[in-house]
Amino acid sequence: MDSVRTEIAQIIDALETGKYKRVRKRLRHMHPAKIASLIETLDDALRLSVWQQVDAAHEGRILAHLTPELARQLHSESGESISTEEEAAAASEAHHASTQMREVREALALGKLKRVGKILHAMHPAKVAGLLESLPPKERVDAWSMVETDRAGKVLSYLHDESCASLAMEMDPEDLVIAVRRLDLDDLVDLIQALPEEVGRQVLQATDERHREKLVSMLSYPEDSAGGLMNTDHISVRPDVKVQTVLGYLRLLKTLPVQTDKLMVADRKGVYQGALRLSTLVTVQPERRVADIMDTEIPAIPVDMPDDEVARLFQDLDLLSAPVVDAQNNLIGRITVDDVVDQIRESSERAMMNMAGLDQEADIFAPVLTSSRRRAVWLGINLVTAFLAAWVIGLFQTTLERVVALAVLMPIVASMGGIAGSQTLTLVIRGMALGQVAGGNARALLSKEMGIAALNGVVWAVVVAGLAVAWFGDWQIGGVIGAAILINLLFAALAGLIVPLVLDRMGIDPALAGGVILTTVTDVIGFFAFLGLATVVL
Amino acid sequence: MDSVRTEIAQIIDALETGKYKRVRKRLRHMHPAKIASLIETLDDALRLSVWQQVDAAHEGRILAHLTPELARQLHSESGESISTEEEAAAASEAHHASTQMREVREALALGKLKRVGKILHAMHPAKVAGLLESLPPKERVDAWSMVETDRAGKVLSYLHDESCASLAMEMDPEDLVIAVRRLDLDDLVDLIQALPEEVGRQVLQATDERHREKLVSMLSYPEDSAGGLMNTDHISVRPDVKVQTVLGYLRLLKTLPVQTDKLMVADRKGVYQGALRLSTLVTVQPERRVADIMDTEIPAIPVDMPDDEVARLFQDLDLLSAPVVDAQNNLIGRITVDDVVDQIRESSERAMMNMAGLDQEADIFAPVLTSSRRRAVWLGINLVTAFLAAWVIGLFQTTLERVVALAVLMPIVASMGGIAGSQTLTLVIRGMALGQVAGGNARALLSKEMGIAALNGVVWAVVVAGLAVAWFGDWQIGGVIGAAILINLLFAALAGLIVPLVLDRMGIDPALAGGVILTTVTDVIGFFAFLGLATVVL
Repeated sequence: MDSVRTEIAQIIDALETGKYKRVRKRLRHMHPAKIASLIETLDDALRLSVWQQVDAAHEGRILAHLTPELARQLHSESGESISTEEEAAAASEAHHASTQMREVREALALGKLKRVGKILHAMHPAKVAGLLESLPPKERVDAWSMVETDRAGKVLSYLHDESCASLAMEMDPEDLVIAVRRLDLDDLVDLIQALPEEVGRQVLQATDERHREKLVSMLSYPEDSAGGLMNTDHISVRPDVKVQTVLGYLRLLKTLPVQTDKLMVADRKGVYQGALRLSTLVTVQPERRVADIMDTEIPAIPVDMPDDEVARLFQDLDLLSAPVVDAQNNLIGRITVDDVVDQIRESSERAMMNMAGLDQEADIFAPVLTSSRRRAVWLGINLVTAFLAAWVIGLFQTTLERVVALAVLMPIVASMGGIAGSQTLTLVIRGMALGQVAGGNARALLSKEMGIAALNGVVWAVVVAGLAVAWFGDWQIGGVIGAAILINLLFAALAGLIVPLVLDRMGIDPALAGGVILTTVTDVIGFFAFLGLATVVL
Repeated sequence: MDSVRTEIAQIIDALETGKYKRVRKRLRHMHPAKIASLIETLDDALRLSVWQQVDAAHEGRILAHLTPELARQLHSESGESISTEEEAAAASEAHHASTQMREVREALALGKLKRVGKILHAMHPAKVAGLLESLPPKERVDAWSMVETDRAGKVLSYLHDESCASLAMEMDPEDLVIAVRRLDLDDLVDLIQALPEEVGRQVLQATDERHREKLVSMLSYPEDSAGGLMNTDHISVRPDVKVQTVLGYLRLLKTLPVQTDKLMVADRKGVYQGALRLSTLVTVQPERRVADIMDTEIPAIPVDMPDDEVARLFQDLDLLSAPVVDAQNNLIGRITVDDVVDQIRESSERAMMNMAGLDQEADIFAPVLTSSRRRAVWLGINLVTAFLAAWVIGLFQTTLERVVALAVLMPIVASMGGIAGSQTLTLVIRGMALGQVAGGNARALLSKEMGIAALNGVVWAVVVAGLAVAWFGDWQIGGVIGAAILINLLFAALAGLIVPLVLDRMGIDPALAGGVILTTVTDVIGFFAFLGLATVVL
């Protein structure tokens, strides 16, 4: 009786902390009668929670042990939550993401975890990952508990680092090991890198020896290099064999690794020779030799090539996969285009997030305190620049006291400069990414940008001056603000071009710091030009 | 003699307007002796220009007709410009883009067009396109003239719309037609769409009839749909044939279209049935039937699916290619991952450029007047919002006259709000793109963002208040600015969340208009809260 009580206490404990997987695991090993008596001892809320964790196949046998009333109640509960075939079909259809999410949230709110499990089961792991990330923490953990262990690894590989780590930590370590067992090695490497060190090491230790060695070597490459994108599942053949031999070998293998569009050709010593496209393999005569039909133009990617260069190479040459070699030109792996696509998407995401001082791997539902602390850094930097601008204004307090209209108009000067400068900045940053800005065309670009600034400066100087005169009825104020706008637009163009070039030379990502520096320049120059001129003229 | 004179006049004319292709074409049909006499009649500068256009193979025969002195001079010129084998090898190596560009610019400056041609010849068309876009207009046209006609089409397909159109217009129409003849249909469609209508029609008319029909139907699909990404070069087989029959058929074809990783399976009527991966084809026994080994899980993409959905599908399912079907499920084409990669890159580029009010297809070296006019739109919109903020400040002129310190400090309030708001905005825009923000989690997100705003608001309110007190020695000013910052950060979070959601519902791209609206809100609220509170308190 004592052990039963302990068991019940443990199950209740697991229920209350949302460890539904643990509940299911325990229930699976209990006798139906025992589960029935457990259910009878629980209050209504917990009773339904337990019922949601019961395997559908065992429901009948448990119901048989319950009082008729309770059995009816739980059975009607199931009737609703166990999806009929139509429902499953509906769930498997390409639902709009937001509909699925609404359904999941409704089911979560009602505690209908089985229904959640059904919906998630019908979704692609990538979609499950997206859905999980769109749920607030508590609901996310509940939904996560309903993802089957053998699909959990794949889902983890689609999550951003932060949510990946937190959900992996929710799992029992042994489940985590089982979940990731069938992942591709490159996904597994990414996962281990996302996990806290201790857990990552556990996962690594649990993989079988043959894989572990490969994993360790893959983990040794920087995440942002070809080695970090590489997988080791390539199939390699010798250059001196015949096509029919290759075909025979492939039929023995029965299946090829996913994303195989070509075989790699390496000599006896493992030195890369070329690649044999499957599309060539199926069109040539069986008696041809590999060496004669292989493609030697496919570039072997050095394992230390930066990942953005790899992405550009794939893009320029329309590659589906490419061999990776070490410094001795030994074939050590391949990169497939799906990982390159992820890299491209991630790097553009990173650029956008960095511009606002955010981390792209951060969880959208990270705890308030964590998020606040992260964002505070950027606000702090901005505060310094804002005080710098304020200090410039402070230099002209006596002028401002005399002509209060200046205080009203001064933000206009700063803001026009900021917009014009950010246009140049964006153009240059993109140009640098595309290689359009490089190797001594900065001067040509500068003269073009200064031309635009001069033209727009004059136009908007006249417009703003006109509006200022109309507002304050003072020709001199009009003249001062017009001149200040022209000056600020010229400096904005200059800064928009020079700031990213200098940052790049200093090894700082211009997308990260460019915007803040630029607006500091345009604020300071704007206020200084406007208030300075006013002090002289008025 | 007259015809010679006309010919010379025409060549000089073509030289002076930079139509080097025309020069080369004419020279190719002239007798070496005639060219020699032409060269002798020209002044030094034009003489070297013509010499640069002479085919290397004919140089010897022309030199033989020249005076020894002139021959020596031109020969030494060639010695420098005709690259030896080492030089060609060096050029073909993976040079850093900026080095190549510098070399090209140097060669252009010296008028050594042959050298330019050599360098360009050794580069991949994508790289040539990038290099051309990094050159100012005049040099770009010169370099363009040295791209071989049969490579020009491929280069055009890698250019952004605006530079593509302008360089295509540089070519003689008949050359353009030749240049694009060997392009893939999907690239040709993009090119025709980028060209001015009249020229596009010419190109279309010039393609052979069989292709023209396909082209017209492909042109009928919107650029941003699956139809716009589609190509019609798929190979389709019947479900009821055997593998050995398929293999025999493929060997008859001799080559498969590039990017073929799978064959499409369609029935007699053309209805899509499934896909047969090459990797399956090479691993199964030859007597298996296609219907039994084809993959029916690969989703057929409806021709009207938006391109960003196509991209997401490719990404989620790691596809290399996918079939495209019409409303009756008839197989009409396929989409390959290389075009999806381009789409992903372009859409992220577009998002970044749009945020600064720029057009991503615009030429970085567009004429100053054109660029100015485009950018003026954004500056004009900003001016309206800046005047709105100024108007709010204007409401409090009497307060500002009394306490000039307010004028000094007010930009700080607005700027902190702008930064905090843009962080929320960026997070939400990205979340919407990833499907993380959808279907009723806005409330959960709002409470999280408001929590962060409250926390950071209090922290920075205290910091700024302390600094303001230290600066102006006035406790009340400190209190006012602190309160204003807290208020503005709360409204910033609110606006950062609501603005993109509302814009999205209105069908406006939040990345395009979100930033401007947000900073307008934070400026107006910031100035109003700060100066309003000051009016009440001080």
